[in-house]
Amino acid sequence: MNIKANDPSLKSWVEIPSDSDFPIQNLPFGIFSTDYLEAGAGVAIGNHILDLTYLHENGFLDGLGLPAGVFNQKYLNDFIGLGKQVAREVRGRISELLNVENDELQSQVAARELSLIPMDEAQMHMPIRVPNYTDFYSSEYHAANVGTMFRDEENALFPNWKHLPVGYHGRASSIVASGVDIHRPYGQLKPAEVEKPFFGASKRLDFELEMAFITCKENGLGNPVSLSESDDYIFGFVLFNDWSARDVQVWEYVPLGPFLAKSFASSMSPWIVTADALEPFKVNGPKQDPEVLPYLQYEGSKNYDIDLQVFIQPDNDVANLVCSTNFKHMYWNVNQQLAHQTMNGCNLQVGDMYASGTISGPDEGSFGSMLELAWKGTKPIQLKNGQKRSFLEDGDTVIMKGQCERNGVKIGFGELKNKVLPSKNKDS
Amino acid sequence: MNIKANDPSLKSWVEIPSDSDFPIQNLPFGIFSTDYLEAGAGVAIGNHILDLTYLHENGFLDGLGLPAGVFNQKYLNDFIGLGKQVAREVRGRISELLNVENDELQSQVAARELSLIPMDEAQMHMPIRVPNYTDFYSSEYHAANVGTMFRDEENALFPNWKHLPVGYHGRASSIVASGVDIHRPYGQLKPAEVEKPFFGASKRLDFELEMAFITCKENGLGNPVSLSESDDYIFGFVLFNDWSARDVQVWEYVPLGPFLAKSFASSMSPWIVTADALEPFKVNGPKQDPEVLPYLQYEGSKNYDIDLQVFIQPDNDVANLVCSTNFKHMYWNVNQQLAHQTMNGCNLQVGDMYASGTISGPDEGSFGSMLELAWKGTKPIQLKNGQKRSFLEDGDTVIMKGQCERNGVKIGFGELKNKVLPSKNKDS
Repeated sequence: MNIKANDPSLKSWVEIPSDSDFPIQNLPFGIFSTDYLEAGAGVAIGNHILDLTYLHENGFLDGLGLPAGVFNQKYLNDFIGLGKQVAREVRGRISELLNVENDELQSQVAARELSLIPMDEAQMHMPIRVPNYTDFYSSEYHAANVGTMFRDEENALFPNWKHLPVGYHGRASSIVASGVDIHRPYGQLKPAEVEKPFFGASKRLDFELEMAFITCKENGLGNPVSLSESDDYIFGFVLFNDWSARDVQVWEYVPLGPFLAKSFASSMSPWIVTADALEPFKVNGPKQDPEVLPYLQYEGSKNYDIDLQVFIQPDNDVANLVCSTNFKHMYWNVNQQLAHQTMNGCNLQVGDMYASGTISGPDEGSFGSMLELAWKGTKPIQLKNGQKRSFLEDGDTVIMKGQCERNGVKIGFGELKNKVLPSKNKDS
Repeated sequence: MNIKANDPSLKSWVEIPSDSDFPIQNLPFGIFSTDYLEAGAGVAIGNHILDLTYLHENGFLDGLGLPAGVFNQKYLNDFIGLGKQVAREVRGRISELLNVENDELQSQVAARELSLIPMDEAQMHMPIRVPNYTDFYSSEYHAANVGTMFRDEENALFPNWKHLPVGYHGRASSIVASGVDIHRPYGQLKPAEVEKPFFGASKRLDFELEMAFITCKENGLGNPVSLSESDDYIFGFVLFNDWSARDVQVWEYVPLGPFLAKSFASSMSPWIVTADALEPFKVNGPKQDPEVLPYLQYEGSKNYDIDLQVFIQPDNDVANLVCSTNFKHMYWNVNQQLAHQTMNGCNLQVGDMYASGTISGPDEGSFGSMLELAWKGTKPIQLKNGQKRSFLEDGDTVIMKGQCERNGVKIGFGELKNKVLPSKNKDS
C-alpha cells in the first residue's frame, strides 16, 4: 500500500524535536482538552496538538464530506466509524496542511496560533468509548513462560495454543487513560500455604505490556470477517497495560478465566496511531507450525516491527528500564485475531479494543510482565535506588513506550503512564 | 419494603386475561415500536403496552421531574439511569393511572386509545444498550453436574467454588432480543477421537436457562459496592439464554475461559421486571457452608422464588417442555454477585447485565441445559413427535418462560423465544 502521507521525505513547518514520536509521517488521533477548550479531537505533531474541531469549523477540511460536529466530541467513535478511507483522506489533508511546502495554514498567523495547541497546555483523555474488549494471549514466549512456571516446560503450551489465538472477553468499563492512577485492588487471596482464602490487598500487582488494535467498522451479527477483509476493520493501535493481580488470578480463574484479577483497571495510551502510518513497518511473523486452518492462513507481512519498553519509576525517583522487547515477536498476528474473533459470527462494534496479550521476547530482559521478569518472585529485579521488585509497590509509576524506525522516520506511540496508589478498600 | 404498587388487591380497568404475566402488580418496562410509532418505552399491562412517550408528552406523568424525551428513545438506559427511586415513582404513578378506581386516563377515550397499544400490533426490541456483561456460574446443581460429567463426582466443584461466585466477562455486542434468529455458529472442533482440530458447524449447540439483572447506577472506578448497598444498583430482571456451542467450548476454553463458544449470541426477554415488583417473592437461599468471607455475608431473604420453564419447539411442530426449575435454587444470590463484581473497585455502568449462570435444580427434569438434560448425549430427550434431542437442531425454537405467584397475584416475564437457523458460514 502506497500512502502518500507516509513519504519519508515529507517535512513540516511545525518544529519537530529530533526525538519526537510525532513527525509528519505519524499524525495519530486523540482526544484532548485545555483550560479553555472542551474535549475534542486532535492530531499530534511534534510537541503540539492540531485542533481538528478548529480546522473543520474554519473550512480547512472542506471537501472531505465530514459531518458537522464530528470532531467536537468526547470520543473518536463517530469519526473512526466513518471508515478507514475517510480517515485516510483526513490524514492526507492534514499532511498537506502541515507540509513545509504548503501555505494554507502556515501563512495564516491567527489560524496557526488557534489550531496548534502546545501539548504541555493540554490534557489527554480516553480517545474512544470502548463497547467491547477482548484480550488475546498471542505471544508464544509469554504463554510458554507462564506454562513453564505454573505447570512444566514439557507441557508449557496447552494443546489448543498453536491452533487458535486463545483469547477471552475483558472488562470494557474499567479501561482508563494514561495518567489515571491505579488503586491496588483488594481480592480473595489463597496462597498455597493457607487453608482458607482471606480478603486483602493484592500483594502481586503486575503490569502486562500489550498492544491493542481498535476497530472502525461493523460486520453485523452472523457475518464472519475473513482474514483478507480484516484490514478494513483495523483502524489503529495503542499501547495497552493489562494490569493484573496475580494472587487474585491464581485463585479465581478456574474454570472460567481471569475476572477480578483484571477488571480493576486496564490502561491505554492516548494517541491512536493509524494502521496506515504503521504500514511501512510490517514484517514477517514467525513460521506457524503446525499449519493453521484455512480461515487463519494469510499472505504477506502481518507483524509489526515496533520496539517496546517498560519502565518502573518508584515514588520521587528515576525511571528504571525493566523490559525491552518488540511487537514483531507475536506468534498470532492481528489479522488472525480478528478473523478468529468473528469466525463464529460475533459482531464487531466501532471502538472495540483487541489487545495482544503480554508481549514477551526470547530473552530475560524482553519479558512483558513482572511475573516473568522476576520469574514468579524467585529473581527480583534490581532497581537503581538499591531496592528490588518482584511485583509492583504502591507509589510505583509504570511507563510504557513504543516506537518504530525506518528510512530515518521514527513513528512513536507517546507514553502510557500510570501510578500505583494504595487500595481504597477498608479491610473487612 | 412496602411498595404500594405491589398491593395484591389492586385491580386495573384494562382487561387482564387470567393467565397473563402482566397484571397491574407487575408493570415491567420495555422498548416497542409499531408500524406508525418509532421505538420508545412502554409498560406491559395484560395484552397491551402502555406508551410512556404518549403519557409523558400529554402531562400524565407531570410532577415526577422526568427529563423531556426520556422515553422517546431506542433504549431504556437514560430512564433507568435516573435511579430506582424515580422508576419507583413512575411505576407508582402508572399503577394509579391503570387502577380501576382512577378516572384520569380511563375516562378519556382518545387518550386511552392512543396510549394503549395491543401487544400483537407491536414489535419488541432490546430494552437496553448493554455496556458490560458478566456471566456468573452460581447454581451448585449446574456446576456439580458439569464437574461430574467432565471430571468426577468427588471433585465436581473446584476448590474456589464455595468461596466466591465464579464468573467471567461475556461478549456484550452479541446480546440480542427475543425473536431474533440464532445462526448455528462455526468453530474449531476437536473431538477426542481426532488428532487435529477442524473447522465446521457446531454439532453441540445448547441453550442455558439463566436470569440476568440489569444495573441502574454507577459506582465509579475504585469504589466497591458493599452488599448492603447493592440493592440500589439492581434495577430489574430478565430471562436470559446463554447460547453455547459445547464442542467449541471444550477445545478453546483452557486456560482463559469460554470465548467463541458463547459470543455468537446470547438473548434476553423484552420486559425488564423491576426488582420492586419481585420484592414479594423473595425467599431464603440455601445455607452456605463453608461460611463466606464478610464482604459476601448477608441478612434476610435474597433469593427469588421464580418458576422457570424451557420448551423446545421443532420446526412446524408443537412445543415440548424439557426443563422446569426455579430461580430460588441458586447458591449465590444477586447481591453477593454484585458485591463480588465490584470488590476490586470494578465500575458498574447503567445497563450492564449480570447473568446468573445456568439455573439447574436438584432433579433431572430441572436441569437448565441440554448438556445436563441429555447428560452429555448419553440420555437423549424424547420429543412428542418421536424425535430425540441430545443438542439443538436447525429449526428448533427455544422458548423460556418465568413466573412467580403469591396471594393470587402472578408476575411473569413473558417469553424469550429464538429459533435456530443453519449457519451462514461457508465451509473453508
